[in-house]
Amino acid sequence: MKLSKSTAILLIHCPDQKGLVASVTDFLHSNNGNIISLEQHVDRAEERFFMRVEWELTDFAIPEEKIDDFFGTLIGQKFRMEWQLHFTDRKPKMAIFVSKASHCLYDILQRYMSGEFKVDITAIIGNHDNLQYLAERFDIPFHLYPITKENKAAQEAEEIQLLKDLGIDFVVLARYMQILSNDFVDHFPNQVINIHHSFLPAFKGARPYHSAFERGVKIIGATSHYVTADLDEGPIIFQDVAKVSHKDTVLDLKRRGKDLEKLVLSQAIWREIQHKILPYKNKTIIFD
Amino acid sequence: MKLSKSTAILLIHCPDQKGLVASVTDFLHSNNGNIISLEQHVDRAEERFFMRVEWELTDFAIPEEKIDDFFGTLIGQKFRMEWQLHFTDRKPKMAIFVSKASHCLYDILQRYMSGEFKVDITAIIGNHDNLQYLAERFDIPFHLYPITKENKAAQEAEEIQLLKDLGIDFVVLARYMQILSNDFVDHFPNQVINIHHSFLPAFKGARPYHSAFERGVKIIGATSHYVTADLDEGPIIFQDVAKVSHKDTVLDLKRRGKDLEKLVLSQAIWREIQHKILPYKNKTIIFD
Amino acid sequence: MKLSKSTAILLIHCPDQKGLVASVTDFLHSNNGNIISLEQHVDRAEERFFMRVEWELTDFAIPEEKIDDFFGTLIGQKFRMEWQLHFTDRKPKMAIFVSKASHCLYDILQRYMSGEFKVDITAIIGNHDNLQYLAERFDIPFHLYPITKENKAAQEAEEIQLLKDLGIDFVVLARYMQILSNDFVDHFPNQVINIHHSFLPAFKGARPYHSAFERGVKIIGATSHYVTADLDEGPIIFQDVAKVSHKDTVLDLKRRGKDLEKLVLSQAIWREIQHKILPYKNKTIIFD
Amino acid sequence: MKLSKSTAILLIHCPDQKGLVASVTDFLHSNNGNIISLEQHVDRAEERFFMRVEWELTDFAIPEEKIDDFFGTLIGQKFRMEWQLHFTDRKPKMAIFVSKASHCLYDILQRYMSGEFKVDITAIIGNHDNLQYLAERFDIPFHLYPITKENKAAQEAEEIQLLKDLGIDFVVLARYMQILSNDFVDHFPNQVINIHHSFLPAFKGARPYHSAFERGVKIIGATSHYVTADLDEGPIIFQDVAKVSHKDTVLDLKRRGKDLEKLVLSQAIWREIQHKILPYKNKTIIFD
Repeated sequence: MKLSKSTAILLIHCPDQKGLVASVTDFLHSNNGNIISLEQHVDRAEERFFMRVEWELTDFAIPEEKIDDFFGTLIGQKFRMEWQLHFTDRKPKMAIFVSKASHCLYDILQRYMSGEFKVDITAIIGNHDNLQYLAERFDIPFHLYPITKENKAAQEAEEIQLLKDLGIDFVVLARYMQILSNDFVDHFPNQVINIHHSFLPAFKGARPYHSAFERGVKIIGATSHYVTADLDEGPIIFQDVAKVSHKDTVLDLKRRGKDLEKLVLSQAIWREIQHKILPYKNKTIIFD
Repeated sequence: MKLSKSTAILLIHCPDQKGLVASVTDFLHSNNGNIISLEQHVDRAEERFFMRVEWELTDFAIPEEKIDDFFGTLIGQKFRMEWQLHFTDRKPKMAIFVSKASHCLYDILQRYMSGEFKVDITAIIGNHDNLQYLAERFDIPFHLYPITKENKAAQEAEEIQLLKDLGIDFVVLARYMQILSNDFVDHFPNQVINIHHSFLPAFKGARPYHSAFERGVKIIGATSHYVTADLDEGPIIFQDVAKVSHKDTVLDLKRRGKDLEKLVLSQAIWREIQHKILPYKNKTIIFD
Repeated sequence: MKLSKSTAILLIHCPDQKGLVASVTDFLHSNNGNIISLEQHVDRAEERFFMRVEWELTDFAIPEEKIDDFFGTLIGQKFRMEWQLHFTDRKPKMAIFVSKASHCLYDILQRYMSGEFKVDITAIIGNHDNLQYLAERFDIPFHLYPITKENKAAQEAEEIQLLKDLGIDFVVLARYMQILSNDFVDHFPNQVINIHHSFLPAFKGARPYHSAFERGVKIIGATSHYVTADLDEGPIIFQDVAKVSHKDTVLDLKRRGKDLEKLVLSQAIWREIQHKILPYKNKTIIFD
Repeated sequence: MKLSKSTAILLIHCPDQKGLVASVTDFLHSNNGNIISLEQHVDRAEERFFMRVEWELTDFAIPEEKIDDFFGTLIGQKFRMEWQLHFTDRKPKMAIFVSKASHCLYDILQRYMSGEFKVDITAIIGNHDNLQYLAERFDIPFHLYPITKENKAAQEAEEIQLLKDLGIDFVVLARYMQILSNDFVDHFPNQVINIHHSFLPAFKGARPYHSAFERGVKIIGATSHYVTADLDEGPIIFQDVAKVSHKDTVLDLKRRGKDLEKLVLSQAIWREIQHKILPYKNKTIIFD
């Protein structure tokens, strides 16, 4: 059974009720759709059902452009579902925001250049020009938007316009050292992925490595999450940690933290590209 | 949606083909079975389909004692499935084999006494009497079968008889320092769980910590697996590792390894009790 | 070079200055003390020097009972050192406080019974009688001190008296679900080791697993630390974490957390017994 | 106490004997050398002593160019020591060997460009030209030496000459898919660092991810080590692992392994640059 290139993915959630899996799989099966993978989850506290299902489009009886309508009419509305439909032969468009630190950007670019990230990087946006050389070396358009207290609203308005014009699917904050305004965030709900350099909820806000050093913790961490209006409170996508000791200075923590940051961010991007993340309220379902 | 106490679990595998998920979920749904959890996996190299599905028995139209027959007749045979049917209100029966080391046995007994392991420990079997005191303190029958080259076949025959008489579902080798004969293993296919004190396939056989020390590795590990006729080659269930350094002597490796051993073994037992393991050829599918 | 059974350990800290290592090692060497291990650390932010040195007492020119005086007079006072002197042939005395949960107590008892923890467990103190059976099965005196708002001060006074009478070196709170009063803590500065069921400083206080579930974190943790007057703010000794997912309910987090708790607590106890911990201000130096 | 830029490092090993630490520290102290860090280790099985000591050169009484002679005459020969002397104001020279995979090279270049690796990358040598673009974008000389069975000896001879001409301190094999000849290795004893894509000693040789998949392991790993004449048998510097499951195909293992490979290799390079590695026989002492 060869894996056909062309597949579709449905991400679904709805109130939990009987017959959900049977209805969805029967819809696919009766239309000759071969299921590649299926994962479901029930949150019993929320009484809510979550599902990710991927199937081959070859031989599927319903044409691509009609799947959304047919699914909605036959299944989705009946069960009060919310759903996203993705086609894996369409590369998502991604923009990257950076400041000065380069480690996350290098990590993303390597995965992009080698084909690991099947994505179009349409723009790199910086509030400093330190990483312009890197964007240029890889022929990715770099846009400089220096941010001050005074120009923040205007600059963000231009950034939003640019992202809309480019048809961006999601934004990655690759150690972007600015807090996005609520207005910006409202334009891209659960579409902006940030990397925070601590294991949230510990050490929210600025200078987490200094705080970790002061507290004398024996592990440090990093957290990738969707950006919401509440700083460092958005749905967590991925976290990882490393053991540290009294020998580590703040500089050591920063150095060692970079390895966590780049990996934890790239893990989130990977899952985003694979459509494996389903955010619900302030949490995520990750269909690994 | 309250979780009913009484649920059933099907573990299935068969050649991959279209309509498998739809057929099984439709069978459950059309008989008013509410699916609690469903996980499926397709091994594309083997072209084989694997599934674990759990559903509530309350309101299920088919009586417990007829489910196996109905499922087989309506679904299983059609798709050439192999399957196991389990009921969660029936505690599995487990026997433990020990030698002298106590750490795994304590760990198991704590989980048993506290109700974490919903299992009946029907017998503790030792080739030494060192841990008899512990079995007695917890009122579990202890059987002493000292093993020598000469009496091994006879002693094992008695052990097999005892396990059969007790109706044991699975056996745990909790640092049992004897190699079971092929004959013994044949009586309990994929029913004997061993803990090996290395990250297999490294350091198979005897004295893995000495070998790890000699090789100068920077991590040690432990592996729980089903016992097969080939020593340390059975399907792996769980593995974990710990970082070590040049400072660690063989004694340190042994001491630190014990923490791995007991956790890795108990993780396997937990999954066995939950019917989350599906061995196939020399591998396992773990429905976590 | 056989390791002599009888060794001494000095734990030292003082303002950083030139010649510290040379002076201490020369003191030991010139008195025919063979150094088994030596570790030092300089905290440059605090400009403070820390050291742990262990040497063989066989052939050492200064008798055991005079070492403290000689070292202080010749070295310690000159460099304004604070130091502890330990002899490894003397077992420390430990008391354990428990409530209802048994997992940490089993873990400690297994290590005690097998000789891994070379310590005297002189008393197990409970505010509930749930674990009395376990203490009795291992012939360790169990003392019941039920705590209410009204009797807390009186009960603690008795506990303090008991611990003093027994000559306890350190106390382990093995999931003891009571907050010790400041008065209690003052009697045992850096002598009470607690296990908190989160990766501090996240989820301080009560019900950390519920909070972790609510926040949707992807890792949970446990932290062992010395108890100080500020709740969950004492010097951290050891931390570890485990990955979790959206599939884990609060009950799953609690179950999985227990494995972290018992290991993280036992790691701290091991280091305490080996005299490898040097607390300074709100941090610890761990001479691993 | 400000950290002076200019420090010296001694890496020492010799037969274990009394007075070693005292003699070395007294040598430094009496010549007004302020010790920044000191770590020692005794391998009791080998009866061998290992030490790393770093001290400030400001105010040190012995001029840099005479330290080696003075230390040898006064201390080293007396104790039959072998030692290396390094000065931290001198950047080591490093060459990188690559084939086609880019992930390790990107990771190294990011650390190099950001100043994390205080090293001179003097040459990138490839047996394919796939990564020439990357070397050029970062203005590092790229040398192409395609290897065939027939030309291997001749090409290696040229590579050795190049490395000698450049005065290379150590070589990094950044997923270089060729086995170096014994002759090559003999020219650079413990100076060639390789990354192997398994947790050695498991899965030595070619295609370790395929072997891991076939065996059904639940963890994969990576190992950095010095290259010796015995393939994948050299002294191990660093290892790390990641958990995998039945869901991971060989391609998934390869993808996930890349993250391990680049981190484990860079950890080794970091320690090499910091002069924290002391190889002895087939093991390493890592002074972390």
